[in-house]
Amino acid sequence: MNLLGVREPGHYGLENLQTVEESCRQKCAELGLSCICFQANGEGELIDFIHRGLTDFQGIVINPGAYTHYSYAIRDALAAVKLPAVEVHISNVHQREEFRHRSVTAPVCVGQICGLGTQGYLLAIEALAGRV
Amino acid sequence: MNLLGVREPGHYGLENLQTVEESCRQKCAELGLSCICFQANGEGELIDFIHRGLTDFQGIVINPGAYTHYSYAIRDALAAVKLPAVEVHISNVHQREEFRHRSVTAPVCVGQICGLGTQGYLLAIEALAGRV
Amino acid sequence: MNLLGVREPGHYGLENLQTVEESCRQKCAELGLSCICFQANGEGELIDFIHRGLTDFQGIVINPGAYTHYSYAIRDALAAVKLPAVEVHISNVHQREEFRHRSVTAPVCVGQICGLGTQGYLLAIEALAGRV
Amino acid sequence: MNLLGVREPGHYGLENLQTVEESCRQKCAELGLSCICFQANGEGELIDFIHRGLTDFQGIVINPGAYTHYSYAIRDALAAVKLPAVEVHISNVHQREEFRHRSVTAPVCVGQICGLGTQGYLLAIEALAGRV
Amino acid sequence: MNLLGVREPGHYGLENLQTVEESCRQKCAELGLSCICFQANGEGELIDFIHRGLTDFQGIVINPGAYTHYSYAIRDALAAVKLPAVEVHISNVHQREEFRHRSVTAPVCVGQICGLGTQGYLLAIEALAGRV
Amino acid sequence: MNLLGVREPGHYGLENLQTVEESCRQKCAELGLSCICFQANGEGELIDFIHRGLTDFQGIVINPGAYTHYSYAIRDALAAVKLPAVEVHISNVHQREEFRHRSVTAPVCVGQICGLGTQGYLLAIEALAGRV
Amino acid sequence: MNLLGVREPGHYGLENLQTVEESCRQKCAELGLSCICFQANGEGELIDFIHRGLTDFQGIVINPGAYTHYSYAIRDALAAVKLPAVEVHISNVHQREEFRHRSVTAPVCVGQICGLGTQGYLLAIEALAGRV
Amino acid sequence: MNLLGVREPGHYGLENLQTVEESCRQKCAELGLSCICFQANGEGELIDFIHRGLTDFQGIVINPGAYTHYSYAIRDALAAVKLPAVEVHISNVHQREEFRHRSVTAPVCVGQICGLGTQGYLLAIEALAGRV
Amino acid sequence: MNLLGVREPGHYGLENLQTVEESCRQKCAELGLSCICFQANGEGELIDFIHRGLTDFQGIVINPGAYTHYSYAIRDALAAVKLPAVEVHISNVHQREEFRHRSVTAPVCVGQICGLGTQGYLLAIEALAGRV
Amino acid sequence: MNLLGVREPGHYGLENLQTVEESCRQKCAELGLSCICFQANGEGELIDFIHRGLTDFQGIVINPGAYTHYSYAIRDALAAVKLPAVEVHISNVHQREEFRHRSVTAPVCVGQICGLGTQGYLLAIEALAGRV
Amino acid sequence: MNLLGVREPGHYGLENLQTVEESCRQKCAELGLSCICFQANGEGELIDFIHRGLTDFQGIVINPGAYTHYSYAIRDALAAVKLPAVEVHISNVHQREEFRHRSVTAPVCVGQICGLGTQGYLLAIEALAGRV
Amino acid sequence: MNLLGVREPGHYGLENLQTVEESCRQKCAELGLSCICFQANGEGELIDFIHRGLTDFQGIVINPGAYTHYSYAIRDALAAVKLPAVEVHISNVHQREEFRHRSVTAPVCVGQICGLGTQGYLLAIEALAGRV
Repeated sequence: MNLLGVREPGHYGLENLQTVEESCRQKCAELGLSCICFQANGEGELIDFIHRGLTDFQGIVINPGAYTHYSYAIRDALAAVKLPAVEVHISNVHQREEFRHRSVTAPVCVGQICGLGTQGYLLAIEALAGRV
Repeated sequence: MNLLGVREPGHYGLENLQTVEESCRQKCAELGLSCICFQANGEGELIDFIHRGLTDFQGIVINPGAYTHYSYAIRDALAAVKLPAVEVHISNVHQREEFRHRSVTAPVCVGQICGLGTQGYLLAIEALAGRV
Repeated sequence: MNLLGVREPGHYGLENLQTVEESCRQKCAELGLSCICFQANGEGELIDFIHRGLTDFQGIVINPGAYTHYSYAIRDALAAVKLPAVEVHISNVHQREEFRHRSVTAPVCVGQICGLGTQGYLLAIEALAGRV
Repeated sequence: MNLLGVREPGHYGLENLQTVEESCRQKCAELGLSCICFQANGEGELIDFIHRGLTDFQGIVINPGAYTHYSYAIRDALAAVKLPAVEVHISNVHQREEFRHRSVTAPVCVGQICGLGTQGYLLAIEALAGRV
Repeated sequence: MNLLGVREPGHYGLENLQTVEESCRQKCAELGLSCICFQANGEGELIDFIHRGLTDFQGIVINPGAYTHYSYAIRDALAAVKLPAVEVHISNVHQREEFRHRSVTAPVCVGQICGLGTQGYLLAIEALAGRV
Repeated sequence: MNLLGVREPGHYGLENLQTVEESCRQKCAELGLSCICFQANGEGELIDFIHRGLTDFQGIVINPGAYTHYSYAIRDALAAVKLPAVEVHISNVHQREEFRHRSVTAPVCVGQICGLGTQGYLLAIEALAGRV
Repeated sequence: MNLLGVREPGHYGLENLQTVEESCRQKCAELGLSCICFQANGEGELIDFIHRGLTDFQGIVINPGAYTHYSYAIRDALAAVKLPAVEVHISNVHQREEFRHRSVTAPVCVGQICGLGTQGYLLAIEALAGRV
Repeated sequence: MNLLGVREPGHYGLENLQTVEESCRQKCAELGLSCICFQANGEGELIDFIHRGLTDFQGIVINPGAYTHYSYAIRDALAAVKLPAVEVHISNVHQREEFRHRSVTAPVCVGQICGLGTQGYLLAIEALAGRV
Repeated sequence: MNLLGVREPGHYGLENLQTVEESCRQKCAELGLSCICFQANGEGELIDFIHRGLTDFQGIVINPGAYTHYSYAIRDALAAVKLPAVEVHISNVHQREEFRHRSVTAPVCVGQICGLGTQGYLLAIEALAGRV
Repeated sequence: MNLLGVREPGHYGLENLQTVEESCRQKCAELGLSCICFQANGEGELIDFIHRGLTDFQGIVINPGAYTHYSYAIRDALAAVKLPAVEVHISNVHQREEFRHRSVTAPVCVGQICGLGTQGYLLAIEALAGRV
Repeated sequence: MNLLGVREPGHYGLENLQTVEESCRQKCAELGLSCICFQANGEGELIDFIHRGLTDFQGIVINPGAYTHYSYAIRDALAAVKLPAVEVHISNVHQREEFRHRSVTAPVCVGQICGLGTQGYLLAIEALAGRV
Repeated sequence: MNLLGVREPGHYGLENLQTVEESCRQKCAELGLSCICFQANGEGELIDFIHRGLTDFQGIVINPGAYTHYSYAIRDALAAVKLPAVEVHISNVHQREEFRHRSVTAPVCVGQICGLGTQGYLLAIEALAGRV
């Protein structure tokens, strides 16, 4: 299983990515899964990485950050690889600006978790574990 | 901690409520929490039960079913009791009709989990456990 | 077959419910059907009654009154019981306020009859008779 | 009484118009009414026929097909002849594309019946019978 | 100069077309213009007639009736013949239903007159007289 | 005269209902009116109580809380009883979320008072006093 | 009869107001009417002048310029004086920016003339002449 | 305390301003307050008067008439003076045209009273009395 | 194969229809197909012709002109005949007025070609050739 | 060059106008330009002053305050005088209420500066200096 | 001439890009044109490639995939190079989700072809051949 | 201070970037500031560069080009670095297409300058100078 992490630096600082990745790897290990973490700011790089899922992954945990709200290209990439994906948002997007209430990527995911902090990644991994 | 369960019978049948409640109680027990389950079809009964949270609960897991999309009265009840609440939807609301993409109750919750089946209730309990 | 009647008192007075129920029962009898009439102002009570259809009814004639225009909860209940239902409005909703032109319950019914007065209930019973 | 029938061939085939017209004529005969059936694809022809109602008809049963959703010209024709009219749709328009949920002609009719198949024409004739 | 008259029978009765045409012909005669009157209910016939303007007319007075609000086909016909046209509405469209406030044909006309009764046709002829 | 009080606990706490009711009763007494106070969370119960107005009340002071913004069922109940009603909101709804700016119940009331705290109930009673 | 002229300098220059006023006065004289011309840039001054119509005028020809599209205050003033008014626009508002397609003042006027240049004022005077 | 009165002549006639001002002055006197009444049709004059509140007033009762629905300039003036203000409408704006349902000035007021006739001014003065 | 040609005279002149039809016939001949060309201004005539496709055609190339943007009746006709159809627009509709960006007929066609001039017809014939 | 200053008192206090005007005059003097400052609350006075630009000014720096968002009359005045104008807002309008994101006057200006405090006026003068 | 191909893997698989590129090269060769194929997932890389058109290409065939619906940056790049471009979509975008009906790139292209499968690329090359 | 320059080649040519960068560097030098210029077409590269601001810059002048209108990712990057930023557009976005009137990045900037040509960059540097 792989972890795709676009950080949300505006709300949570840029520094804690390593901590999150570490706890994700640990959670995966507990569940007998391997885990590849990836972080990028570019839409194209994210799509390239998702496409690797066609051959390399069994499931995807993804936090598309602000791309959640307009990147139909990431949506199409997720749909193309036909893997179970769980969308995670650290903050509760429904409490923030209107534009964050709409997700264009969630309709091609299995489900979505938001507002539960970085614990959301771990819950998403648990949820995926039973599906891969 | 209490579980508020409005079932989604159209998508999952009406019969499995007991099973869900049982596994929620078990999960709570594991985490050292007590758990009160409640199910009702009426907006007023749901609000009455939420108001009990002012004195009786420490956190709320709620699946407001179709009320999610228009019941500002349930929203106000959740806001009034000032408890951490997690909204759960068994199905991925983003894959269904347009009107299900909007939640009027999520903005007053801590977070939302959708599309992960009845496991969503258990993940929500886990998330609440660290907050109560 | 059962008759669910939320009256439209603002347009037709509150007194004539009994008359309508009587003629519905008579129409059903002519068609060799039994008929249970029910009227309530509460969304929850209406949903409870609709859910009875899972075991007790073969078809539903329903006038959801003002709930027609926003009660996704009644919609979900109708969808859950998977019975043929006909929606009836005594007045022509298309001639009234803009908000009455939209029905959130009609998409899960077999069909809709509006504007034909209380005769609409009888026509709906006729239409259901051939489907149950 | 006359029957105006714009067929809905996409959903029901083009062949069964004659059958429908026959059963309408029979229903009218039972109710002691005469019946003129008319079918055309052109907005202008339909309007010309409706205008005949000023002198020739006492009521109108009309299925405006796709014109239902945009033909203000047919609406104005129906309003001009000041006859009781019942709009019929064979399919449940509320279950189909968004654009079919709006009727521009229904506000100038007595009422509307949809989703009850070709039986809808007969129910409409019954409803008109008490009004002419 | 020609007069294209789609009557508005719903608001003014169907009978007075002849009177209007007569006074238009008289007005044109006073101004040294000839006048061809035409009335039809069909969009296609109206477009055919407008196209005659390419060779036969110098200007157009048109009352597109309900077509005003949606017939882009009539709009395109008026634009194609490149003649000065004046749109006339007998009633004040701004006092009626919302959908009548928008004209899709007015943008390709020289101007529009509404609400001044059948006198509007005569004022339109006066206005055109100085332009042909 | 009766007082219908849906509390706004989110903004003002749940505890002060008794105080408000007491001062309303006192105000009514000063004006020579009797007063029945009622509070409920359920739409159906509120409608049942409003319907009592057909025989028992002369006027209504109502704070529909969050139902203000979507309950067409309460609107229809208010319209059905044909009594002078004054809508009261303790907070200034225009300063809060967008969805609170629209009232579906106000159009069937005599008037509305908002933002003047619990004094609003007393002012509403004064206003009704001259109308019953 | 009086002429209220808000000039449209952007499209026609500021200099020709006098010419227009002169030809309006002449037209009125021909029709046996007296004529008061008024021009102002301020909404309040225009409203003050319209209010004079309660005692001083029998009809109003008004070009509200850009106020046409948002001044509900001018609309209310026109409605208050209950005089026949004709709205005039020198240019064809339907050919210009989207915001100019909507008139908030036309619904309280008898009718509207646009796109016929300054001749529009004279046609409006003719139309009013038969109504005062 | 001052009274800002933009009359609503279309609905209530232009003549009764003096009566309203008299009863406002009397009400203020009863409450031990002084009262300055002001009426103007111009947005600029109203803003100038509101600005006087910075030094001269303690509270404002304002009926912005049609300006209520679009004058962000009056809104900004009210916000600038930072005084408690109560918005009054003599008629029930929620029963009138759609555009009157929105108030751009209410969000910067303490509250709003509508539909209670000229008594609304007196109730507003009472409400302000406890706040200045 | 047949060619349905509603010309776009406003943009390309009315004269060149014959030339287009000639090159279409030639293209079809090259591909071993027969070709029937048809042009009409009336919605009804176009629908009548499309219905002929049930028995007479194997595919349709159609330029619905302005009807593209609102004729649900033509859409229903195309859907009813269940033939592969290609929609052609001579001009690039995306560069013109907003209302031309939406096609109500394209969803029931195989595909759409626009902006490539009259060559679009020939490309459409090529595309259809492999499908009939 | 002239400076048109509608203050934004709600955000910056009413007192500092003189200071701003002084620094603007100084900036102009440095650039060899003369400068006329003007401030008014009335739309009409602002338009009158803008019209003076036809003969008296070479460029305009304008802060239309709240009028920015709805005053098509000021827009038309700016367009009429055909002078280079720069719109200035002291605050960042994009960070404030939704209605402040739209400017109806900016489309007829050369450019817009916002959010840079009163320095915005000086930058605007610099920008105009190279254009007059 | 160059071919810019963003694949639509969700609908057509990721594997067949090479085949498409091969047939495009062959088609170009037949028409005496050279052809550069390019595929990338990143908006920036696509824009970089389009910019090469300023010096290296004579025309562009582009399938912007999901970027079609929101990438104003690609639109601006296409507009900047001022080359004839044809937009191609393999699937009929009008039959898919609502968001795919709008193209932000088509307005700066010569034309658009959709729904004709990979043949669309070849037809686009034919169309461009006559324009370069 | 750094300069982020996404060029607007469609409106101003691709060649003049060097000139702009040169004058920016010179302006910074005059103000005693150092300046790093950066230009890229990719969203990800721009975000990477903005993130450098966390450690390397004191302020940002940014022209996000077409990304201005939809890149919530760039918005979040700007918000994350918490530096004063000024958004610059060479052209007056309010005079161009509707979609260019909305900026999703401006709400997280200090201010915005548009329409003042490349001088806008220099004015932005001046404005930032007093803030870093």
